[in-house]
Amino acid sequence: MLGQKRIRDYGVKIGRLQTGEFNSITDLKGVKVGHVTLSDKEMQTGVTAIVPHQGNIFREKLIASSHVINGFGKTMGTIQLKELGAVETPIILTNTLSIGTAADALIEHMLEQNPEIGRTTGTVNPIICECNDMLLNDIRGRFVKKEHIFEALVNASSEFKEGTVGAGTGMLCYSLKGGIGTSSRLMPLEHGTYTMGVLVLSNFGILSDLNINGKAVGEELRAAILDSYEEKDKGSIIIVVGTDLPVTDRQLNRMIKRAVTGLSRTGSIMTHGSGEVVIGFSTATKIPHEKTTHCQVISTIHEEEMDMAFRAVGEATEEAILNSLVTATHVVGRDGNERPAFKDLIAKFNIEIK
Amino acid sequence: MLGQKRIRDYGVKIGRLQTGEFNSITDLKGVKVGHVTLSDKEMQTGVTAIVPHQGNIFREKLIASSHVINGFGKTMGTIQLKELGAVETPIILTNTLSIGTAADALIEHMLEQNPEIGRTTGTVNPIICECNDMLLNDIRGRFVKKEHIFEALVNASSEFKEGTVGAGTGMLCYSLKGGIGTSSRLMPLEHGTYTMGVLVLSNFGILSDLNINGKAVGEELRAAILDSYEEKDKGSIIIVVGTDLPVTDRQLNRMIKRAVTGLSRTGSIMTHGSGEVVIGFSTATKIPHEKTTHCQVISTIHEEEMDMAFRAVGEATEEAILNSLVTATHVVGRDGNERPAFKDLIAKFNIEIK
Amino acid sequence: MLGQKRIRDYGVKIGRLQTGEFNSITDLKGVKVGHVTLSDKEMQTGVTAIVPHQGNIFREKLIASSHVINGFGKTMGTIQLKELGAVETPIILTNTLSIGTAADALIEHMLEQNPEIGRTTGTVNPIICECNDMLLNDIRGRFVKKEHIFEALVNASSEFKEGTVGAGTGMLCYSLKGGIGTSSRLMPLEHGTYTMGVLVLSNFGILSDLNINGKAVGEELRAAILDSYEEKDKGSIIIVVGTDLPVTDRQLNRMIKRAVTGLSRTGSIMTHGSGEVVIGFSTATKIPHEKTTHCQVISTIHEEEMDMAFRAVGEATEEAILNSLVTATHVVGRDGNERPAFKDLIAKFNIEIK
Amino acid sequence: MLGQKRIRDYGVKIGRLQTGEFNSITDLKGVKVGHVTLSDKEMQTGVTAIVPHQGNIFREKLIASSHVINGFGKTMGTIQLKELGAVETPIILTNTLSIGTAADALIEHMLEQNPEIGRTTGTVNPIICECNDMLLNDIRGRFVKKEHIFEALVNASSEFKEGTVGAGTGMLCYSLKGGIGTSSRLMPLEHGTYTMGVLVLSNFGILSDLNINGKAVGEELRAAILDSYEEKDKGSIIIVVGTDLPVTDRQLNRMIKRAVTGLSRTGSIMTHGSGEVVIGFSTATKIPHEKTTHCQVISTIHEEEMDMAFRAVGEATEEAILNSLVTATHVVGRDGNERPAFKDLIAKFNIEIK
Repeated sequence: MLGQKRIRDYGVKIGRLQTGEFNSITDLKGVKVGHVTLSDKEMQTGVTAIVPHQGNIFREKLIASSHVINGFGKTMGTIQLKELGAVETPIILTNTLSIGTAADALIEHMLEQNPEIGRTTGTVNPIICECNDMLLNDIRGRFVKKEHIFEALVNASSEFKEGTVGAGTGMLCYSLKGGIGTSSRLMPLEHGTYTMGVLVLSNFGILSDLNINGKAVGEELRAAILDSYEEKDKGSIIIVVGTDLPVTDRQLNRMIKRAVTGLSRTGSIMTHGSGEVVIGFSTATKIPHEKTTHCQVISTIHEEEMDMAFRAVGEATEEAILNSLVTATHVVGRDGNERPAFKDLIAKFNIEIK
Repeated sequence: MLGQKRIRDYGVKIGRLQTGEFNSITDLKGVKVGHVTLSDKEMQTGVTAIVPHQGNIFREKLIASSHVINGFGKTMGTIQLKELGAVETPIILTNTLSIGTAADALIEHMLEQNPEIGRTTGTVNPIICECNDMLLNDIRGRFVKKEHIFEALVNASSEFKEGTVGAGTGMLCYSLKGGIGTSSRLMPLEHGTYTMGVLVLSNFGILSDLNINGKAVGEELRAAILDSYEEKDKGSIIIVVGTDLPVTDRQLNRMIKRAVTGLSRTGSIMTHGSGEVVIGFSTATKIPHEKTTHCQVISTIHEEEMDMAFRAVGEATEEAILNSLVTATHVVGRDGNERPAFKDLIAKFNIEIK
Repeated sequence: MLGQKRIRDYGVKIGRLQTGEFNSITDLKGVKVGHVTLSDKEMQTGVTAIVPHQGNIFREKLIASSHVINGFGKTMGTIQLKELGAVETPIILTNTLSIGTAADALIEHMLEQNPEIGRTTGTVNPIICECNDMLLNDIRGRFVKKEHIFEALVNASSEFKEGTVGAGTGMLCYSLKGGIGTSSRLMPLEHGTYTMGVLVLSNFGILSDLNINGKAVGEELRAAILDSYEEKDKGSIIIVVGTDLPVTDRQLNRMIKRAVTGLSRTGSIMTHGSGEVVIGFSTATKIPHEKTTHCQVISTIHEEEMDMAFRAVGEATEEAILNSLVTATHVVGRDGNERPAFKDLIAKFNIEIK
Repeated sequence: MLGQKRIRDYGVKIGRLQTGEFNSITDLKGVKVGHVTLSDKEMQTGVTAIVPHQGNIFREKLIASSHVINGFGKTMGTIQLKELGAVETPIILTNTLSIGTAADALIEHMLEQNPEIGRTTGTVNPIICECNDMLLNDIRGRFVKKEHIFEALVNASSEFKEGTVGAGTGMLCYSLKGGIGTSSRLMPLEHGTYTMGVLVLSNFGILSDLNINGKAVGEELRAAILDSYEEKDKGSIIIVVGTDLPVTDRQLNRMIKRAVTGLSRTGSIMTHGSGEVVIGFSTATKIPHEKTTHCQVISTIHEEEMDMAFRAVGEATEEAILNSLVTATHVVGRDGNERPAFKDLIAKFNIEIK
């Protein structure tokens, strides 16, 4: 977004469903994304905040679900998310060794907004997701401070950058620079047209496995650049899925499991060392924090309407990953470690990706 | 029921919630239970059918859930039950080696009632649960025939026997005769009073572990009868939970997990060899088989109202197990193997269980 | 196999690992596969049996695991398989409405081979998997009899047919004829070279989604034949994974989850109505049925060696699916319903799939 | 321990297995426990560290597992623990709003001990568990600082206090003061005698539900003191289980699931608002961090030997909870909120608990 050249601008069209207006998770009304980028020499890291709605999310929770593709990861908050089927905070993405700081900051943020927490009502369940940016970033330096989380939340907007930005600053994708990417799909059903939005923090894969819409671009690139980089994947991917489809948390869980189809089509084999976690939420229903005296009514689609959502999640995930790859820029970081930008390489070696 | 002396008739009152009218799973409107008992020398087995509502359950499914306490069991149908959160057939209980026959019969029953299955719509997911009655029953004889399943379904009624009957004919409980038991609880909430019903097929435990409302009756009995029977548990328990609370399948799953509190209080340590499975359904909402053109509306209680349901499930499970024990009668079966009736023993040895 | 033209014979090479000698699950020593094909007018169904080792599998179990991709299916036996991490019977594949018969037959087979079952030891956990072949087969006719299961077990051999055979007789794949397919991969590790074998029963997908090694062959075909067939997926896929890698059931579970990468690359979006289940076993360790007086020693690979296995599962699954598609033959079945053979279509329309 | 009067000192004997030497989780060789207690007016909180072995736990991991009884909790680290079946850090217990700080501190501790983390090897997965002590503690004050976690780790010893100490300082148990408790059991098997140790952080339950070895002490107490306190459970319980039994992570998971039997027997109904999580580890096998060139050999008990472990976990959990209750002391905390000590009440009202 914001003037960046994205995968569609290279003529690559993923899937068959139409995208939303901005082809972004923020095509969902109320969803906003904010970054803080920390990029200076050995410091190549940051924070990305996804805000699921613009009200008080603790008092009006959203139906939510999580799915672990590969559990070599440290994502926090999924135990309660699974038990209650709801999210009650923004979702924070950062580097692996900063999850404690991020959790502490998000708790503080929630306490400020909700003076009743820990007084007249219980506590709060922060959702923190992470990838390991140790190649480019001095991750032991733990540069992320609480202020950066607050700032990312303040920065949240319906327009935001992709690629080498926020939590994606130091991340890799198929051995090249990766980071933040997003995409969306429209889902026409009989009772309305709905949106599926995906945002990824990509940090996985080895170059030779990269596929773009069926084309083995990774092998071609690897042959061209005569360099494999470290062909060892210690990465991860965080996939955040938002939708305005009216669903239960079980239905949402079925949907977000389909993120793997898009992930697989870019070439991933989901390696051992790659923490791969999906967090999903629906903006269709708000769950009140306080007990009501009556039953709540939840609107849900018929199970047979799921296929549209399954297709949308797969397509948007695939495109979001490719967007993270093509928008990323060259980074030199810790100990002079560097990763080239995909866009620079295909220009230099004149590689056709369509 | 039906004139049997139950645990309350011995002065033992479990928990603090009130029971439903018949203290039975059939206190739930529309729920019926039918038995076929096969008892003759080495044949000591049978079938019990639980019918969750009196309409066409394939066309109007109920929200449902399952929970595995210990998976050393062969219960069928839980994969789909978990994925779709719905039950679409009656629930059949029988002995372990008759599950194939029971599945085949239940499929046939559903095909007869629904000529569109396998023609204009897909297939059907039979729910079959089992325990191993090999001590008293010649289980290798596989005496259960398809006709017995059909008959159990026809027999389904709101009044039914407990103890040595139906699938419980050859089952054990704490090394004595066990089998079928049931109980129910009322749940007063602000928006109405609801019912929780439990039916168990008990076939687990060793005598010395038996506890009745906190009293170590098992040890006392064992001392009195100077016999431990085979103190090796190869048993199981099937727990069927029905409620009319309006809930999602996630909420239902939370509830049925609490069956373990009642089970534990009777003394169970949930042994390795004991297949322990809970199946739950809610009669509050019917899910149409056919796709609708609009969204469906599901009514659900607030999560904070769960505690009443948690207490009800635990109490009703505990009492249902004790009912299965105190109503069971002495059986001599395969190879002269026998198990005494609890009620005969406490009379004979003058043991106070209150 | 057995003289059939497979996907590699069309010049399509999936992935980068070498195949085993026969590119089949039976490259694993001791693994055998047997079919019974029932093909006559409206009867288009059958049975496939996978025998994991040639000893007494009840007395010497194998470490095993299962994974549900989409649970709209009726596979039996996974509760115990998950609890104990072991398989103790052959694996039977058949049509959805014949699972009761198949379970009954497999139980009978196990009782015959193990006279101690139900006498001096407990019962047995049959593994039955299914897909719905109702389009081509009169599935309500339930043509599969117990004899067919016995026969499939007797037929088990290290060489077997793919395509329109056994349980695959009436199955579809991407709206064309599908059925049985297999493939294998070699995994060179420091301590030896191991084999990963996959067998699929394919019955899923819509034509326009079909991808062959990145090529959108499905769309091309659909344009050529001017026919979409019923573009509604009510299918399923069963994926059986065998390996001789020494692993725990947790490690095995991680591996078999990666079957989705291969499945996704053929174009699947894992539709709502498609029951998709993976069953895996390792032949490396035998678990004795009887209690031993000493601890058992299990050999396991280091977690970091997993990536080779992850790649192997994905590649072999993808290739097995394509083998099921290219070996299948044209079938006219129930009510004159028919599905063409992929191989006939690409010949007729001169479509290049490489 | 350390001169405290424990439940056995009141003549209450839970179960039938013998305890270990100190009836403590530290009966396991190498396991140590350390506290930091922060108790001053409105500050009533702290930290408890469980160190599973005395070597470098990151380089020599232990087989581990987790089990969620009720997921209304914020425990961190279980995604990776489940995926890899191993623990690689000490386990930290603290209050809910301090988990970020605790995670940050534990990460820092691990980085100091392992300079290769984030440089030549990947990151580290901190295990942080929590309960909500907001009634007695000003939890919004977030008094726990990183130094307190370091200090708790340094304090770790094989002898430690129970009750109102460490993370248990502000916790409740059945509406009275609760906190830290421990217990152990010996398990004689044919190939050796093993130990099961349990440590709990108790913070759950309402007074009227309290049962001591089958006796309804809670109701009796409630009648005596003419006060119900706030009969609303917003609590939780963390249960840490250690053993030296040689097991796989699957077997360990089966064991730790049985903690619910002990929990249930003290009277718990596992309320909605109570985060209840079990973490288990086995000291029998060390899993090397670095890839080896050969397979690893894991020793495991036969599945039939599990029952001894199931009984041990249940008994030790029940006794650990009661120890946390009877050793706790009266606390006046935030806003003058207070909770009496169980031991003071039974003395005052002359209540017999045996």
